[in-house]
Amino acid sequence: MMKNHPLHHGECIEVKQIGLACRLDKENALELTGKIIEYFMKKDVKLVLENRIAQRFQRFLPKKDLRQMNKLQMKAIISVGGDGTILRVAQNLPRKNPVPVFGINLGDSVGFLDECDLDSDNLYDVLDKLINNEYYTERTMRLATYHRQSRFPDALNEIYIVSAKPSKVLHVNITIDGEFFTLAHVDGLIISTTVGSTAYSLSAGGALLDPRLQLIQIVPVNPFARTSIRPIIVPATSQIEIELIRPKLNALIVIDGQHDYRIYPKNIIRIQKSDSDFEFIRLSPNFHGNFYNKLQKKILVGLNLPEDSPEE
Amino acid sequence: MMKNHPLHHGECIEVKQIGLACRLDKENALELTGKIIEYFMKKDVKLVLENRIAQRFQRFLPKKDLRQMNKLQMKAIISVGGDGTILRVAQNLPRKNPVPVFGINLGDSVGFLDECDLDSDNLYDVLDKLINNEYYTERTMRLATYHRQSRFPDALNEIYIVSAKPSKVLHVNITIDGEFFTLAHVDGLIISTTVGSTAYSLSAGGALLDPRLQLIQIVPVNPFARTSIRPIIVPATSQIEIELIRPKLNALIVIDGQHDYRIYPKNIIRIQKSDSDFEFIRLSPNFHGNFYNKLQKKILVGLNLPEDSPEE
Amino acid sequence: MMKNHPLHHGECIEVKQIGLACRLDKENALELTGKIIEYFMKKDVKLVLENRIAQRFQRFLPKKDLRQMNKLQMKAIISVGGDGTILRVAQNLPRKNPVPVFGINLGDSVGFLDECDLDSDNLYDVLDKLINNEYYTERTMRLATYHRQSRFPDALNEIYIVSAKPSKVLHVNITIDGEFFTLAHVDGLIISTTVGSTAYSLSAGGALLDPRLQLIQIVPVNPFARTSIRPIIVPATSQIEIELIRPKLNALIVIDGQHDYRIYPKNIIRIQKSDSDFEFIRLSPNFHGNFYNKLQKKILVGLNLPEDSPEE
Amino acid sequence: MMKNHPLHHGECIEVKQIGLACRLDKENALELTGKIIEYFMKKDVKLVLENRIAQRFQRFLPKKDLRQMNKLQMKAIISVGGDGTILRVAQNLPRKNPVPVFGINLGDSVGFLDECDLDSDNLYDVLDKLINNEYYTERTMRLATYHRQSRFPDALNEIYIVSAKPSKVLHVNITIDGEFFTLAHVDGLIISTTVGSTAYSLSAGGALLDPRLQLIQIVPVNPFARTSIRPIIVPATSQIEIELIRPKLNALIVIDGQHDYRIYPKNIIRIQKSDSDFEFIRLSPNFHGNFYNKLQKKILVGLNLPEDSPEE
Repeated sequence: MMKNHPLHHGECIEVKQIGLACRLDKENALELTGKIIEYFMKKDVKLVLENRIAQRFQRFLPKKDLRQMNKLQMKAIISVGGDGTILRVAQNLPRKNPVPVFGINLGDSVGFLDECDLDSDNLYDVLDKLINNEYYTERTMRLATYHRQSRFPDALNEIYIVSAKPSKVLHVNITIDGEFFTLAHVDGLIISTTVGSTAYSLSAGGALLDPRLQLIQIVPVNPFARTSIRPIIVPATSQIEIELIRPKLNALIVIDGQHDYRIYPKNIIRIQKSDSDFEFIRLSPNFHGNFYNKLQKKILVGLNLPEDSPEE
Repeated sequence: MMKNHPLHHGECIEVKQIGLACRLDKENALELTGKIIEYFMKKDVKLVLENRIAQRFQRFLPKKDLRQMNKLQMKAIISVGGDGTILRVAQNLPRKNPVPVFGINLGDSVGFLDECDLDSDNLYDVLDKLINNEYYTERTMRLATYHRQSRFPDALNEIYIVSAKPSKVLHVNITIDGEFFTLAHVDGLIISTTVGSTAYSLSAGGALLDPRLQLIQIVPVNPFARTSIRPIIVPATSQIEIELIRPKLNALIVIDGQHDYRIYPKNIIRIQKSDSDFEFIRLSPNFHGNFYNKLQKKILVGLNLPEDSPEE
Repeated sequence: MMKNHPLHHGECIEVKQIGLACRLDKENALELTGKIIEYFMKKDVKLVLENRIAQRFQRFLPKKDLRQMNKLQMKAIISVGGDGTILRVAQNLPRKNPVPVFGINLGDSVGFLDECDLDSDNLYDVLDKLINNEYYTERTMRLATYHRQSRFPDALNEIYIVSAKPSKVLHVNITIDGEFFTLAHVDGLIISTTVGSTAYSLSAGGALLDPRLQLIQIVPVNPFARTSIRPIIVPATSQIEIELIRPKLNALIVIDGQHDYRIYPKNIIRIQKSDSDFEFIRLSPNFHGNFYNKLQKKILVGLNLPEDSPEE
Repeated sequence: MMKNHPLHHGECIEVKQIGLACRLDKENALELTGKIIEYFMKKDVKLVLENRIAQRFQRFLPKKDLRQMNKLQMKAIISVGGDGTILRVAQNLPRKNPVPVFGINLGDSVGFLDECDLDSDNLYDVLDKLINNEYYTERTMRLATYHRQSRFPDALNEIYIVSAKPSKVLHVNITIDGEFFTLAHVDGLIISTTVGSTAYSLSAGGALLDPRLQLIQIVPVNPFARTSIRPIIVPATSQIEIELIRPKLNALIVIDGQHDYRIYPKNIIRIQKSDSDFEFIRLSPNFHGNFYNKLQKKILVGLNLPEDSPEE
């Protein structure tokens, strides 16, 4: 899932621009964005602001929406906020060849997609690395969702198919590469990427997936008590078909927690690996070690249990 | 939770009426209802039909809605269908002193509230018992939900508090009898009666509760992976307060899978035992044995595993 | 499960003795015990040491084993250590009318049975309260286990029935008050008290039980994937019978993690509420509030999640 | 994990022998073995019996133990019984180039490793296919376990590391390719192959793995309630190191439920893909479809739920 890009040292004749996106509803995110702008201006970095934040900052900086930004010569888009902000940015970039995203976490969130966490990292060191091209890009697959002729936006984390009526159980037929897997009675179904294994999939009982693997995980959400469906992991090349079969009960398709689409009984949704990957900027080439560090810090927390003897 | 009513043998001077409700969307339910009407008419039982089914049957039979029926001298209301039908009937009867309900399951459903399952019981034997007063009534508590001055309908199975946005996690403070229990990050929260322990609560990981106990169970639905909240069981006398604390995220309150109500950030919902019980007609006085039989038949199914030796 | 004893203020004409037990394998436990002895001697409290720790301390203090101690006029036995130490003390006191136990936790353990946690409490304040009879006793039920004519020691937390061969699955028939519950294929089975709901039962997926309830919880341990057995909660008055039915596969009965007994195919174990309760010394009469405080501190930990808005 | 062998049609100049193993403790297994011997003798197939069953059958047939059999020119060893029998055979064949195994299930077991299930297949058709070389071989990886200089037998399903004292929790450090994963407080730990994902791993909460994937899954068994460790899936090329760190508490290593080995505090176990695969005889080349069929038949069972409408 990850490809270690060559270090860009010295090869950049033309100085690429850096984009800046930020969540609007948190004061500390805006404040941090202000500091980044200031530093980059001092360092003569060419900056583009996302439209929605432009009026909050220097008026003379170029501003674009994310779709336009992608057409420029861009090194990266910095996303200031948590995973929600990164997912919003990802959803608004064009599907094909999106600019790599560099996530800066405010330190008060439990993000897993970001690269820099201001609880533990120094902002200016981090920005210098970006300026000096001392970074790596990690490629990660996305999932494409098809319904008849239409295609929904790609998912970086997961596609969530959920009953349109809370407490009315969905009945869905699940087929994997043409083989019938099961008829599931569930509140919902999560179809997750490897990257998404630490997100919603985990709450619903999915397994953690090592980032070196390219896999798709299907996780039932609250399976009706008398059925024994379990999370299942299938190859990244699989075609997964999901058919709504309960009469009169619609479902919502939620992509990365961002967009909702409504589907209807007898509709069949097809999910498979997207033809277009996504890229994250990383400061260390050890993507795998980075994952286990984050697991330690963000998921596998708990009481600091004593290592006592069992003798009593 | 259960009270064994005296057998009514011989004491009935005045012949009470029997009400009849039925789901409308299944042909076999309507057919069965037709047979019941025919048999009762042959036996001179005084019948009242629920309004919504009246036009499908004998025009000269009295028809009422469930609320009006409750004002008559009624022995019981027969509910033909599954648990969903019983829950709809229960929701439409008045809260105070509702007529006892006798559930007849069509045999193709996984109902737990009904008393008679036409896969295993003989319809006419069952109807004779009802006519001849050879039955028992099982009382069961309900849960009342208060929001400010208003009170939602009582719940027989459960109150389900769920995020109004699929995939946006609710943050709720839970207080039990004035003691802070936890701040939960969950998709939803089920507050269930003992009877409801075999319903939605079970799908979400709740424990089964023996029907001789009067208890309230609180079950988190998809707790955010990094929190360790678990199902908790509290006395039936407890006051449970739930406060929505995530800014801008509303929740829906779903009562017995029937009605939705919307609540808003900072709203506090209070849940406690209702002052009004519900009654089911039962054909055997061994309510507890009946429960374990149903568990066997409807929940604890699985492969018929061989009792082999472990020697290889 | 709990009885609020009258405050003993002023009524104690005869000064009762205090016993002292301690785990031997941790230096800080022994050190703390030394401080307690010193303080009690200064205050002229009559002390008795458990035999096994006596040689480590003042030689001239009386020493007894726990069984002998129980025959004296004792106010309490202090148990210095964690839950394991309390469980060992409980197992070694006589079944009938055991002296109340006052648990002092070293602060590095996750105990739930203790009353005083030296991370948050001041040792000498706590000891003064004990001396001045400013305390309460909390009664809690135990579980008795019978096999044919013999009776195993009572359990404060749980009885664990586990396959004698790791990875060979037990087959057990479970009967509750004469009603067949299920044939379980499991690694083991936990039969837990209310107090035990925060101990091993919790790891195996059991529900938390409010301490005001007297209940028995039966929790399957690793049920064979294709069966749908779940934790079940039954009245404290229930008789639970468990029969080993897999040929040639023995089981171990582990009482409170302390003692092992071996049982054999066709053996039937009967479990029910013991005729003898256990008593803990408590410093506050709000046993229920105390429970929720401990839950917060010891179980429901996790990352400190931000209360952000869901708008991105 | 699977390699589709060329059909052997016509190429076999030299007629290879077929071995026969069987569980001894079930009469129907021995009976079936008798029928197989009879049929093969009629068809002039060269048969070798495993030593331990030889005295039960034709005395003049050659007999060998499994290790010796492997040195002969063998087409396959037929294993009559369930998964336990196949695992025993696998454990007793030499590690290097073991003869392919053809599992015949008696139809009363829940086996997942076998190829032929006499509930649904015709014995003589199946045997003819084997005689006529109308079959495929499915390769599957195994896991090797190292402890210092020694190597335990390879595992086809799983390696189970379990506390040597029931109810005393293991503390283990888990490292994946040199990256620290977590310090787990668990009853045990299952390290499973893809094939093992339907076995013990599933009971403990592991995910199902599509057989086209080569993966290793690590599943915690009863993690101590306050830790949030989850099943994790890592590449088949990973080196997993597990260190026992709780003082005085030993662990058992159980390989495929067959052999036990004892390890001690501070011991470090290393687990990785074995250099030697295992082979199963399959009658259809659609290994993946075969897996989903078995899932349907053996795991995803449950009540036959009606597809009703949600309108009530």
